[in-house]
Amino acid sequence: MLETDFKYIIDTFFTLFAMTLIIFMVPGFAMLEAGLVRTKNVSAVLTTNVMIYAVASLAFLLFGYKVAFGSFDSSTSSIWAIVMFQMAFVGKSINIVSGGVSERVRIIPLAIFTIIMGSVIYPMVVNISWGADMLRDTFLDLSMYDLAGSTVIHSTGGWALLAALFIVGSRRGRYQEGRVKVIPASNIPLVVLGAFLLWIGWFGFNGGSVGSISSVESANLVAKTIMNTNTAGLCGAIIAGVIMYIRYKLFDITMILNGALGGLVAVTAAADLYDMYTPILIGLIGGALVVFAVPLFDKLKLDDPVGALSVHLINGIWGTLAVGIFIQNISFMAQLKGVFLIGMFVFSISYTVLFIINKFFKFRADNEAQLMGMDINECGVEAYPEFRRAI
Amino acid sequence: MLETDFKYIIDTFFTLFAMTLIIFMVPGFAMLEAGLVRTKNVSAVLTTNVMIYAVASLAFLLFGYKVAFGSFDSSTSSIWAIVMFQMAFVGKSINIVSGGVSERVRIIPLAIFTIIMGSVIYPMVVNISWGADMLRDTFLDLSMYDLAGSTVIHSTGGWALLAALFIVGSRRGRYQEGRVKVIPASNIPLVVLGAFLLWIGWFGFNGGSVGSISSVESANLVAKTIMNTNTAGLCGAIIAGVIMYIRYKLFDITMILNGALGGLVAVTAAADLYDMYTPILIGLIGGALVVFAVPLFDKLKLDDPVGALSVHLINGIWGTLAVGIFIQNISFMAQLKGVFLIGMFVFSISYTVLFIINKFFKFRADNEAQLMGMDINECGVEAYPEFRRAI
Amino acid sequence: MLETDFKYIIDTFFTLFAMTLIIFMVPGFAMLEAGLVRTKNVSAVLTTNVMIYAVASLAFLLFGYKVAFGSFDSSTSSIWAIVMFQMAFVGKSINIVSGGVSERVRIIPLAIFTIIMGSVIYPMVVNISWGADMLRDTFLDLSMYDLAGSTVIHSTGGWALLAALFIVGSRRGRYQEGRVKVIPASNIPLVVLGAFLLWIGWFGFNGGSVGSISSVESANLVAKTIMNTNTAGLCGAIIAGVIMYIRYKLFDITMILNGALGGLVAVTAAADLYDMYTPILIGLIGGALVVFAVPLFDKLKLDDPVGALSVHLINGIWGTLAVGIFIQNISFMAQLKGVFLIGMFVFSISYTVLFIINKFFKFRADNEAQLMGMDINECGVEAYPEFRRAI
Repeated sequence: MLETDFKYIIDTFFTLFAMTLIIFMVPGFAMLEAGLVRTKNVSAVLTTNVMIYAVASLAFLLFGYKVAFGSFDSSTSSIWAIVMFQMAFVGKSINIVSGGVSERVRIIPLAIFTIIMGSVIYPMVVNISWGADMLRDTFLDLSMYDLAGSTVIHSTGGWALLAALFIVGSRRGRYQEGRVKVIPASNIPLVVLGAFLLWIGWFGFNGGSVGSISSVESANLVAKTIMNTNTAGLCGAIIAGVIMYIRYKLFDITMILNGALGGLVAVTAAADLYDMYTPILIGLIGGALVVFAVPLFDKLKLDDPVGALSVHLINGIWGTLAVGIFIQNISFMAQLKGVFLIGMFVFSISYTVLFIINKFFKFRADNEAQLMGMDINECGVEAYPEFRRAI
Repeated sequence: MLETDFKYIIDTFFTLFAMTLIIFMVPGFAMLEAGLVRTKNVSAVLTTNVMIYAVASLAFLLFGYKVAFGSFDSSTSSIWAIVMFQMAFVGKSINIVSGGVSERVRIIPLAIFTIIMGSVIYPMVVNISWGADMLRDTFLDLSMYDLAGSTVIHSTGGWALLAALFIVGSRRGRYQEGRVKVIPASNIPLVVLGAFLLWIGWFGFNGGSVGSISSVESANLVAKTIMNTNTAGLCGAIIAGVIMYIRYKLFDITMILNGALGGLVAVTAAADLYDMYTPILIGLIGGALVVFAVPLFDKLKLDDPVGALSVHLINGIWGTLAVGIFIQNISFMAQLKGVFLIGMFVFSISYTVLFIINKFFKFRADNEAQLMGMDINECGVEAYPEFRRAI
Repeated sequence: MLETDFKYIIDTFFTLFAMTLIIFMVPGFAMLEAGLVRTKNVSAVLTTNVMIYAVASLAFLLFGYKVAFGSFDSSTSSIWAIVMFQMAFVGKSINIVSGGVSERVRIIPLAIFTIIMGSVIYPMVVNISWGADMLRDTFLDLSMYDLAGSTVIHSTGGWALLAALFIVGSRRGRYQEGRVKVIPASNIPLVVLGAFLLWIGWFGFNGGSVGSISSVESANLVAKTIMNTNTAGLCGAIIAGVIMYIRYKLFDITMILNGALGGLVAVTAAADLYDMYTPILIGLIGGALVVFAVPLFDKLKLDDPVGALSVHLINGIWGTLAVGIFIQNISFMAQLKGVFLIGMFVFSISYTVLFIINKFFKFRADNEAQLMGMDINECGVEAYPEFRRAI
């Protein structure tokens, strides 16, 4: 057998394996968000997650992939495996948006935004970062290092969410008389399940982004990448737990899990470049950033029920910049430029698109609909019709 | 290393990978069905799912595999990987039956049927479709194309369910005074989780059915098969959502997920043969068929709480026939003959077996037991003992 | 390509695949335990599970791996894949402890114990069983066969749990006036989901422990190991169901699942050595042992809400001894010696460590805290705040 054939076969198989792990993030996000919102909004959140996977993936297959990469071809592994792997990413950036505006967003305008984000906005970010690179040889050309998308996926989703929060506004009753009304998560086991499905999916996300496992060097790199990814998640969870305990003598499980996710986001930019100890620091800082950012966004009246800004935007930025701090040959300024340019691009185009959609289809459900719950108004299906509500 | 050894190793690994994905369908079916039934029947539905996996798998290992394939041997990859892969399929066809008769079926007679279906009925269908082929050189010989079981698994399960519905009857109070009593799903997050575990399992089901990944051609074929499988699922979900919205201005998440599953069933017959666009059409038609078939079966008073007839029987048939429509070299009449013969065989033998079992162990729980719930009567374990019921 | 390179690549990929399956056991244990305890203790149990994964894994990466294996090096596959694979095991032994003392244990002392168990106790057991072997050439040298940890993981966890039960005591009100108060599981779907995630994880646990898939012989061995693992689980479930039905005419799903897990634990010691029929017997005996051990431990007032002693300790011992019974070249006495020595070592050191920790940080929550529930006292987060409690 030719060595190139061997590599083709192994890398196709490996890409399919990694892609499959990423698809576990679809129920992962769905369970996480369903657990974090109130019972009256659970069906709507789940429907939104299913809609995003279906609509964004199809938009990416039909249009987005070509926007990002130009054409369907590959000589090193099956193009269909590569397309599926890339397709598995697209919904994630939109999930970040939908999670952050949940409990008041309507599905139709979000579906329209999903089509545009999945076929144009996200693919253009990929184009200039990992893909055909339309900015090559211009002064805007990016030389940012971003292995698996601290910026391309996570802060991209975060900036689009920020734009969406300006359009959609906060949930009814969240900020009243200068106080933040606490709205507890309705189903903690689902939150834990969702967080771990995301965690496992991250192995595919980051490991698969190495792009090949078919040489001794790349096999080592994939394994180290997965180990480093995991380590940052461990440390994000630990530091969030420690801080919560120091402050409140209580272990807030939702904060601990968001700390873990923050660490995972932060290490994503360069899990392949770090030695085995650096991800500890990346994760500790990432988890701590989440704990401090969550109340900060509430002070700014940016109402984000799932903590997506803290996890994805803040840590997407932190993780991208960290590469420039910890890796010798990576320029901090190049990383900063990448964060800044992509942030400007995504925020401004997302805001514009959301603004226009909102003229025709209001994103925000009215107060009465929010009071009744999005499930009744958007889906006609209650999530738990037989369980009597205590509150 | 010999090229044959390389292929043996890679294909064994790949088969184990695909098999593992299929095993995720065991909790997938369990969660889907547990979410769709009422809380008083959840433990019984779950127990049934566990029973089917345990009993059908053991019956297949001890008897069914030999009925289907004749002997334990293989020279191209490990026979134990192949046996496990085939074993992973068997429970699925029986899950289709049990799901459709849930909320009133008793476990003991179902366990007896499971033994017979797992050791004889399903293996005989496999024998004439994929296996030793006892009908070879007879006028009944099948030349149907069915990659991963639109007919062999899904419509087989569907025909057996139809037979079971004639024996078991509808749930107490479902059809009264000419009206259909709406019985809502009790736990929507479980339905979503279950549907996505099935979706991911389908990658293993269809991808693994290609049978090999150890050449450049087969690696491409596996990747394309998985992509096509996914695409049909996406489109099934989208069309179901669109139709529901046009009709009711509401997104019924259970219908959207059944639409996705319908698309997945339909593409299963030939996900390897289609180009990347045909599965869009297959899935759109599959999802639409589900939406229209569900109320139709209720008009026929075939009470199927999980929509299994619409998803598996209707789309199993549609998917098998579609191969004859969309693929040049496949004869539509051969596909139709396969659907018809297997349907006749499975329905008649299942009806006979169910009828006989029912003489000794009644399948149907009496009205009082149904009113109390199957959990108390069959398991002695309530699913959610601490949650107060609203209805 | 060099044959050694080929093997390196394939075995690295395979180890990562197996490791990933084991990580699914993290949400697996979490869901199983969250479903088995009362709603007022669910967040605490989940937090404990997350804490164990984070703390034990980091402790093992930083200290435990070197205690067990001496150094980070490997020439046959990527050391990082091997480290991750071994790291995936460590939390399991501690989960066994935490599950058995749930509903009354406090998180801080458990976290301290987790650090010690993850960095010293468990790694020392690995050292003398699979690792650097510090007892080599002493009269204590173990020649026990234990493929994937019937003793090294399961009875180790079980002995530590037994020690913990002596320190922590039973739940408030569990044993009153000579009677055992029945405390039902609060969420059966989570129990089923958790059990199947564990089951699938076991494929990685046992299959991965073969250590290589890169020859025809080892590929066969991996496949047979996974099949045998599964078979014992099937039979454990079946026998538990049969016994429960004979006794009570009811199918207790939690007992059936614990029977399955018992079978899986028992076959773990030598799933690679058995023919395809022996695991049937191993699993039947394993499942039966669970059914009889559960009430026995209650008679001894060892209050173990999840049945961990019956599943992991009893079947860990049974499975290890079974190798000496069923495999010709394995000495029963060597197996017995291994069980005994590791049991003595783990019990005594765990008891000592737990005793000392307990002097400074009480493991047991006081009665009032138990009455209110551990969620409020340890986490400040209720698991299901919106569902009104019936009991």
